[in-house]
Amino acid sequence: MEVLKVSAQTNPKAIAGALAAVIRQSGRAEIQAIGAGAVNQAVKAIAIARGFIAPNGIDLVMIPAFAEIEIDGASRTAIKFIVESRS
Amino acid sequence: MEVLKVSAQTNPKAIAGALAAVIRQSGRAEIQAIGAGAVNQAVKAIAIARGFIAPNGIDLVMIPAFAEIEIDGASRTAIKFIVESRS
Repeated sequence: MEVLKVSAQTNPKAIAGALAAVIRQSGRAEIQAIGAGAVNQAVKAIAIARGFIAPNGIDLVMIPAFAEIEIDGASRTAIKFIVESRS
Repeated sequence: MEVLKVSAQTNPKAIAGALAAVIRQSGRAEIQAIGAGAVNQAVKAIAIARGFIAPNGIDLVMIPAFAEIEIDGASRTAIKFIVESRS
């Protein structure tokens, strides 16, 4: 599954567009965010993507989870969002 | 539906416990957060609550949406999370 990485500087609309494209193609997507600013942008992107994808008859939901990832040899806790159709 | 208000200072585990209690009782809950710090705590709370509620056979999902709310006469954009069972 494709993982979209979001930072605090990412434009939520841009991520929403990418997210909608991945969902239309493969039915689900994963977003990874580290830090409050990034998590906030990810959540906004998903809210916006719901509007992009609703005309396709898809009701998007998200499932948040913690993920341990390694960056430059140091362990960081990321938030992973699985985004998929409700049905 | 009961609305749980989360701030950047809220302890995610405390909110997760309250969320799990509301979900067990009424099947769904709503969380309101304003600002990146609050949204981050809300997302962590939902990830934790998934673990609290999984033994009840409930697979929690969340739906994020924008909400305009009024605080002290000024309009603010909040993030509203609907949290409910997937099925």
